[in-house]
Amino acid sequence: MSRQSNRATDNKKMNSELFTLTYGALVTQLCKDYENDEEVNKQLDKMGYNIGVRLIEDFLARSSVGRCHDFRETADVIAKVAFKMYLGITPSVTNWSPAGDEFSLILESNPLVDFVELPDNHSNLVYSNLLCGVLRGALEMVQMAVDVRFSQDTLRGDNVTEIRMKFIKRIEENLPAGDE
Amino acid sequence: MSRQSNRATDNKKMNSELFTLTYGALVTQLCKDYENDEEVNKQLDKMGYNIGVRLIEDFLARSSVGRCHDFRETADVIAKVAFKMYLGITPSVTNWSPAGDEFSLILESNPLVDFVELPDNHSNLVYSNLLCGVLRGALEMVQMAVDVRFSQDTLRGDNVTEIRMKFIKRIEENLPAGDE
Repeated sequence: MSRQSNRATDNKKMNSELFTLTYGALVTQLCKDYENDEEVNKQLDKMGYNIGVRLIEDFLARSSVGRCHDFRETADVIAKVAFKMYLGITPSVTNWSPAGDEFSLILESNPLVDFVELPDNHSNLVYSNLLCGVLRGALEMVQMAVDVRFSQDTLRGDNVTEIRMKFIKRIEENLPAGDE
Repeated sequence: MSRQSNRATDNKKMNSELFTLTYGALVTQLCKDYENDEEVNKQLDKMGYNIGVRLIEDFLARSSVGRCHDFRETADVIAKVAFKMYLGITPSVTNWSPAGDEFSLILESNPLVDFVELPDNHSNLVYSNLLCGVLRGALEMVQMAVDVRFSQDTLRGDNVTEIRMKFIKRIEENLPAGDE
Protein backbone atom coordinates (compact mmCIF):
# COMPACT_ATOMS: atom_id res chain seq x y z
CA MET A 1 0.00 0.00 0.00
CA SER A 2 1.72 3.20 -1.06
CA ARG A 3 1.50 6.70 0.23
CA GLN A 4 -0.98 9.09 -1.27
CA SER A 5 -1.62 11.68 1.38
CA ASN A 6 0.08 15.01 1.03
CA ARG A 7 -1.70 16.63 3.91
CA ALA A 8 0.26 19.02 6.02
CA THR A 9 1.50 18.00 9.41
CA ASP A 10 -1.83 18.34 11.13
CA ASN A 11 -2.15 17.11 14.64
CA LYS A 12 -4.78 14.49 15.14
CA LYS A 13 -4.12 13.36 18.67
CA MET A 14 -5.72 10.16 19.78
CA ASN A 15 -5.75 8.06 22.90
CA SER A 16 -3.65 4.95 22.65
CA GLU A 17 -6.18 2.23 23.51
CA LEU A 18 -7.49 1.55 20.01
CA PHE A 19 -3.90 1.34 18.81
CA THR A 20 -2.99 -0.96 21.68
CA LEU A 21 -5.83 -3.36 20.94
CA THR A 22 -5.20 -3.26 17.19
CA TYR A 23 -1.56 -4.07 17.81
CA GLY A 24 -2.71 -6.98 19.95
CA ALA A 25 -4.81 -8.24 17.05
CA LEU A 26 -1.75 -8.06 14.80
CA VAL A 27 0.44 -10.03 17.21
CA THR A 28 -2.32 -12.60 17.72
CA GLN A 29 -2.66 -13.02 13.97
CA LEU A 30 1.10 -13.53 13.58
CA CYS A 31 1.06 -16.11 16.38
CA LYS A 32 -1.52 -18.01 14.32
CA ASP A 33 0.51 -17.62 11.13
CA TYR A 34 3.97 -18.62 12.30
CA GLU A 35 5.31 -21.76 13.87
CA ASN A 36 7.14 -20.33 16.83
CA ASP A 37 7.78 -17.18 18.82
CA GLU A 38 11.16 -16.55 17.19
CA GLU A 39 9.50 -16.35 13.78
CA VAL A 40 6.86 -13.98 15.14
CA ASN A 41 9.57 -11.79 16.70
CA LYS A 42 11.37 -11.69 13.36
CA GLN A 43 8.20 -10.81 11.53
CA LEU A 44 7.33 -8.03 13.98
CA ASP A 45 10.82 -6.60 13.59
CA LYS A 46 10.50 -6.71 9.80
CA MET A 47 7.08 -5.04 9.83
CA GLY A 48 8.42 -2.43 12.21
CA TYR A 49 11.38 -1.82 9.92
CA ASN A 50 9.04 -1.13 6.99
CA ILE A 51 7.01 1.21 9.18
CA GLY A 52 10.10 3.06 10.44
CA VAL A 53 11.37 3.59 6.92
CA ARG A 54 8.14 5.44 6.14
CA LEU A 55 7.49 7.05 9.52
CA ILE A 56 10.80 8.94 9.49
CA GLU A 57 9.56 11.25 6.75
CA ASP A 58 6.53 12.19 8.81
CA PHE A 59 8.73 12.58 11.86
CA LEU A 60 11.21 14.95 10.21
CA ALA A 61 8.39 17.05 8.75
CA ARG A 62 6.50 17.20 12.04
CA SER A 63 9.37 17.71 14.45
CA SER A 64 11.62 20.07 12.48
CA VAL A 65 14.53 18.21 14.05
CA GLY A 66 17.75 18.65 12.11
CA ARG A 67 20.72 16.35 11.77
CA CYS A 68 21.97 15.05 15.11
CA HIS A 69 25.62 15.74 15.91
CA ASP A 70 26.23 12.63 17.95
CA PHE A 71 24.56 9.51 19.30
CA ARG A 72 23.70 11.27 22.57
CA GLU A 73 21.66 13.83 20.72
CA THR A 74 20.01 11.05 18.72
CA ALA A 75 19.07 9.31 21.96
CA ASP A 76 17.45 12.46 23.33
CA VAL A 77 15.48 13.10 20.16
CA ILE A 78 14.19 9.52 20.11
CA ALA A 79 13.12 9.61 23.75
CA LYS A 80 11.80 13.15 24.10
CA VAL A 81 10.43 13.86 20.64
CA ALA A 82 9.72 10.62 18.77
CA PHE A 83 8.31 8.47 21.58
CA LYS A 84 6.31 11.41 22.86
CA MET A 85 4.89 12.06 19.43
CA TYR A 86 3.91 8.56 18.40
CA LEU A 87 3.33 6.75 21.69
CA GLY A 88 2.61 9.59 24.11
CA ILE A 89 5.36 8.57 26.51
CA THR A 90 8.88 9.80 27.28
CA PRO A 91 11.32 7.01 28.14
CA SER A 92 14.42 7.89 30.10
CA VAL A 93 17.81 7.57 28.43
CA THR A 94 20.31 5.73 30.57
CA ASN A 95 22.98 3.01 30.92
CA TRP A 96 25.41 4.58 28.48
CA SER A 97 28.39 2.44 27.54
CA PRO A 98 31.76 4.08 28.32
CA ALA A 99 32.42 4.48 24.60
CA GLY A 100 29.10 6.29 24.17
CA ASP A 101 27.92 3.90 21.45
CA GLU A 102 25.24 2.15 23.47
CA PHE A 103 22.35 3.30 25.65
CA SER A 104 19.04 2.12 27.02
CA LEU A 105 15.56 3.55 26.77
CA ILE A 106 13.66 2.79 29.95
CA LEU A 107 9.89 2.74 29.51
CA GLU A 108 8.12 3.10 32.83
CA SER A 109 4.97 2.11 31.04
CA ASN A 110 4.56 0.67 27.59
CA PRO A 111 1.26 1.54 25.92
CA LEU A 112 1.53 -1.49 23.64
CA VAL A 113 1.05 -3.89 26.53
CA ASP A 114 -1.71 -2.09 28.42
CA PHE A 115 -4.23 -4.90 28.02
CA VAL A 116 -1.82 -7.78 27.64
CA GLU A 117 -0.76 -10.86 29.52
CA LEU A 118 1.51 -13.35 27.76
CA PRO A 119 0.05 -16.85 27.65
CA ASP A 120 2.38 -19.51 29.07
CA ASN A 121 3.02 -21.08 25.69
CA HIS A 122 4.52 -17.85 24.34
CA SER A 123 7.39 -17.39 26.75
CA ASN A 124 9.81 -16.44 23.94
CA LEU A 125 7.54 -13.88 22.36
CA VAL A 126 8.99 -10.37 22.30
CA TYR A 127 5.56 -8.86 22.17
CA SER A 128 6.53 -5.26 21.41
CA ASN A 129 9.30 -6.16 18.98
CA LEU A 130 7.70 -3.99 16.29
CA LEU A 131 9.17 -0.99 18.11
CA CYS A 132 12.73 -2.27 17.59
CA GLY A 133 12.08 -2.56 13.89
CA VAL A 134 10.57 0.91 13.73
CA LEU A 135 13.63 2.43 15.41
CA ARG A 136 16.02 0.45 13.23
CA GLY A 137 14.23 1.37 10.00
CA ALA A 138 13.82 5.03 10.85
CA LEU A 139 17.47 5.43 11.88
CA GLU A 140 18.66 3.67 8.76
CA MET A 141 16.93 6.35 6.71
CA VAL A 142 19.05 8.97 8.45
CA GLN A 143 22.22 7.00 7.73
CA MET A 144 22.60 5.25 11.06
CA ALA A 145 22.90 1.49 11.39
CA VAL A 146 21.77 0.67 14.90
CA ASP A 147 21.14 -2.61 16.66
CA VAL A 148 17.90 -2.47 18.67
CA ARG A 149 16.54 -5.08 21.05
CA PHE A 150 14.52 -5.50 24.22
CA SER A 151 16.70 -6.32 27.21
CA GLN A 152 13.96 -6.09 29.84
CA ASP A 153 10.21 -6.43 29.50
CA THR A 154 7.47 -5.99 32.10
CA LEU A 155 5.52 -8.67 30.21
CA ARG A 156 8.20 -11.15 31.23
CA GLY A 157 8.18 -10.04 34.84
CA ASP A 158 10.83 -7.32 34.75
CA ASN A 159 10.13 -4.12 36.64
CA VAL A 160 10.57 -1.90 33.63
CA THR A 161 10.78 -2.25 29.91
CA GLU A 162 14.25 -1.57 28.51
CA ILE A 163 15.19 -1.13 24.88
CA ARG A 164 18.93 -1.41 24.27
CA MET A 165 20.33 0.52 21.31
CA LYS A 166 23.83 0.00 19.96
CA PHE A 167 25.35 2.19 17.28
CA ILE A 168 26.97 0.06 14.58
CA LYS A 169 28.07 2.46 11.88
CA ARG A 170 27.24 5.48 9.85
CA ILE A 171 25.85 4.45 6.49
CA GLU A 172 27.39 6.13 3.47
CA GLU A 173 24.78 7.92 1.43
CA ASN A 174 24.43 6.02 -1.79
CA LEU A 175 24.37 8.37 -4.69
CA PRO A 176 22.31 7.13 -7.61
CA ALA A 177 24.51 5.28 -10.05
CA GLY A 178 25.21 7.47 -13.06
CA ASP A 179 24.98 6.36 -16.66
CA GLU A 180 28.32 5.11 -17.84
CA MET B 1 -4.03 -11.96 25.48
CA SER B 2 -6.07 -10.85 28.45
CA ARG B 3 -6.30 -7.60 30.28
CA GLN B 4 -4.04 -6.98 33.22
CA SER B 5 -3.76 -3.21 33.46
CA ASN B 6 -5.85 -1.50 36.05
CA ARG B 7 -4.31 1.90 35.54
CA ALA B 8 -6.54 4.89 35.88
CA THR B 9 -7.81 6.71 32.85
CA ASP B 10 -4.60 8.50 32.16
CA ASN B 11 -4.32 10.42 28.94
CA LYS B 12 -1.44 9.35 26.78
CA LYS B 13 -2.17 11.22 23.59
CA MET B 14 -0.33 10.15 20.51
CA ASN B 15 -0.23 11.16 16.90
CA SER B 16 -2.00 8.74 14.61
CA GLU B 17 0.75 7.88 12.11
CA LEU B 18 2.27 4.91 13.94
CA PHE B 19 -1.23 3.52 14.41
CA THR B 20 -2.03 4.11 10.75
CA LEU B 21 1.08 2.29 9.54
CA THR B 22 0.60 -0.55 12.03
CA TYR B 23 -2.96 -0.96 10.85
CA GLY B 24 -1.61 -1.10 7.31
CA ALA B 25 0.73 -3.92 8.34
CA LEU B 26 -2.24 -5.80 9.80
CA VAL B 27 -4.33 -5.46 6.64
CA THR B 28 -1.36 -6.46 4.48
CA GLN B 29 -0.82 -9.55 6.63
CA LEU B 30 -4.48 -10.53 6.33
CA CYS B 31 -4.31 -10.08 2.56
CA LYS B 32 -1.47 -12.61 2.57
CA ASP B 33 -3.35 -14.98 4.85
CA TYR B 34 -6.75 -15.07 3.19
CA GLU B 35 -7.82 -16.04 -0.27
CA ASN B 36 -9.93 -13.06 -1.21
CA ASP B 37 -10.97 -9.59 -0.14
CA GLU B 38 -14.32 -10.75 1.20
CA GLU B 39 -12.54 -13.03 3.67
CA VAL B 40 -10.22 -10.21 4.71
CA ASN B 41 -13.20 -7.89 5.22
CA LYS B 42 -14.87 -10.52 7.37
CA GLN B 43 -11.71 -11.03 9.40
CA LEU B 44 -11.24 -7.29 9.95
CA ASP B 45 -14.82 -7.01 11.12
CA LYS B 46 -14.33 -9.92 13.52
CA MET B 47 -11.10 -8.48 14.93
CA GLY B 48 -12.79 -5.12 15.29
CA TYR B 49 -15.68 -6.74 17.12
CA ASN B 50 -13.31 -8.29 19.65
CA ILE B 51 -11.61 -4.93 20.08
CA GLY B 52 -14.92 -3.07 20.52
CA VAL B 53 -16.08 -5.53 23.16
CA ARG B 54 -13.01 -4.60 25.22
CA LEU B 55 -12.70 -0.93 24.26
CA ILE B 56 -16.18 -0.06 25.56
CA GLU B 57 -15.05 -0.51 29.16
CA ASP B 58 -12.20 1.95 28.67
CA PHE B 59 -14.58 4.29 26.87
CA LEU B 60 -17.20 4.31 29.61
CA ALA B 61 -14.53 4.87 32.29
CA ARG B 62 -12.82 7.61 30.35
CA SER B 63 -15.84 9.49 29.01
CA SER B 64 -18.22 9.30 31.98
CA VAL B 65 -20.99 9.01 29.42
CA GLY B 66 -24.13 7.50 30.85
CA ARG B 67 -26.85 5.46 29.21
CA CYS B 68 -28.14 7.04 25.98
CA HIS B 69 -31.85 7.74 25.82
CA ASP B 70 -32.25 7.20 22.13
CA PHE B 71 -30.34 6.37 18.95
CA ARG B 72 -29.79 10.07 18.19
CA GLU B 73 -27.94 10.52 21.43
CA THR B 74 -25.93 7.37 20.70
CA ALA B 75 -24.98 8.79 17.32
CA ASP B 76 -23.75 12.02 18.88
CA VAL B 77 -21.71 10.24 21.53
CA ILE B 78 -20.08 8.01 18.92
CA ALA B 79 -19.17 10.93 16.65
CA LYS B 80 -18.23 13.60 19.18
CA VAL B 81 -16.78 11.58 22.02
CA ALA B 82 -15.67 8.15 20.83
CA PHE B 83 -14.19 9.03 17.43
CA LYS B 84 -12.56 12.10 18.90
CA MET B 85 -11.06 10.06 21.71
CA TYR B 86 -9.70 7.10 19.78
CA LEU B 87 -9.09 8.49 16.29
CA GLY B 88 -8.76 12.22 16.89
CA ILE B 89 -11.51 13.12 14.42
CA THR B 90 -15.15 14.15 14.70
CA PRO B 91 -17.33 12.76 11.92
CA SER B 92 -20.60 14.49 11.16
CA VAL B 93 -23.85 12.69 11.85
CA THR B 94 -26.26 12.87 8.95
CA ASN B 95 -28.66 11.12 6.53
CA TRP B 96 -31.12 10.05 9.20
CA SER B 97 -33.83 7.66 8.07
CA PRO B 98 -37.37 8.97 8.64
CA ALA B 99 -37.89 6.35 11.33
CA GLY B 100 -34.76 7.52 13.15
CA ASP B 101 -33.24 4.04 13.15
CA GLU B 102 -30.46 4.70 10.63
CA PHE B 103 -27.82 7.37 10.20
CA SER B 104 -24.48 7.99 8.60
CA LEU B 105 -21.15 9.07 10.00
CA ILE B 106 -19.32 11.17 7.42
CA LEU B 107 -15.55 11.16 7.85
CA GLU B 108 -13.99 14.09 6.03
CA SER B 109 -10.68 12.42 6.59
CA ASN B 110 -9.96 8.92 7.78
CA PRO B 111 -6.69 8.54 9.68
CA LEU B 112 -6.57 4.82 8.86
CA VAL B 113 -5.98 5.50 5.17
CA ASP B 114 -3.51 8.37 5.42
CA PHE B 115 -0.70 6.51 3.68
CA VAL B 116 -2.79 4.11 1.63
CA GLU B 117 -3.63 3.44 -1.96
CA LEU B 118 -5.57 0.28 -2.81
CA PRO B 119 -3.75 -1.93 -5.31
CA ASP B 120 -5.88 -2.79 -8.37
CA ASN B 121 -6.19 -6.43 -7.37
CA HIS B 122 -7.93 -5.52 -4.12
CA SER B 123 -10.93 -3.69 -5.46
CA ASN B 124 -13.30 -5.43 -3.04
CA LEU B 125 -11.25 -4.76 0.05
CA VAL B 126 -13.03 -2.68 2.67
CA TYR B 127 -9.76 -1.45 4.06
CA SER B 128 -11.06 0.20 7.23
CA ASN B 129 -13.61 -2.50 8.02
CA LEU B 130 -12.12 -2.98 11.48
CA LEU B 131 -13.95 0.20 12.50
CA CYS B 132 -17.34 -1.36 11.71
CA GLY B 133 -16.50 -4.29 13.93
CA VAL B 134 -15.33 -2.02 16.74
CA LEU B 135 -18.60 -0.07 16.65
CA ARG B 136 -20.70 -3.24 16.45
CA GLY B 137 -18.83 -4.90 19.33
CA ALA B 138 -18.84 -1.85 21.58
CA LEU B 139 -22.54 -1.18 21.03
CA GLU B 140 -23.44 -4.80 21.67
CA MET B 141 -21.89 -4.44 25.11
CA VAL B 142 -24.33 -1.64 25.88
CA GLN B 143 -27.24 -3.76 24.72
CA MET B 144 -27.61 -2.41 21.20
CA ALA B 145 -27.55 -4.63 18.13
CA VAL B 146 -26.50 -2.38 15.27
CA ASP B 147 -25.63 -3.12 11.67
CA VAL B 148 -22.52 -1.17 10.62
CA ARG B 149 -21.00 -0.93 7.14
CA PHE B 150 -19.10 1.39 4.86
CA SER B 151 -21.33 2.91 2.19
CA GLN B 152 -18.73 5.33 0.76
CA ASP B 153 -14.95 5.21 0.91
CA THR B 154 -12.40 7.73 -0.34
CA LEU B 155 -10.11 4.77 -1.05
CA ARG B 156 -12.58 3.66 -3.71
CA GLY B 157 -12.83 7.12 -5.22
CA ASP B 158 -15.73 8.53 -3.21
CA ASN B 159 -15.43 12.12 -2.00
CA VAL B 160 -15.95 11.22 1.62
CA THR B 161 -15.96 8.15 3.78
CA GLU B 162 -19.42 7.20 5.04
CA ILE B 163 -20.23 4.64 7.69
CA ARG B 164 -23.89 3.63 7.71
CA MET B 165 -25.35 2.50 11.02
CA LYS B 166 -28.71 0.79 11.37
CA PHE B 167 -30.32 0.03 14.69
CA ILE B 168 -31.59 -3.54 14.78
CA LYS B 169 -32.78 -4.16 18.30
CA ARG B 170 -32.20 -3.64 21.95
CA ILE B 171 -30.56 -6.71 23.44
CA GLU B 172 -32.10 -8.04 26.60
CA GLU B 173 -29.60 -8.08 29.40
CA ASN B 174 -28.88 -11.68 30.17
CA LEU B 175 -28.97 -12.21 33.87
CA PRO B 176 -26.73 -14.97 35.06
CA ALA B 177 -28.68 -18.19 35.30
CA GLY B 178 -29.58 -18.81 38.93
CA ASP B 179 -29.24 -22.09 40.76
CA GLU B 180 -32.48 -23.98 40.60
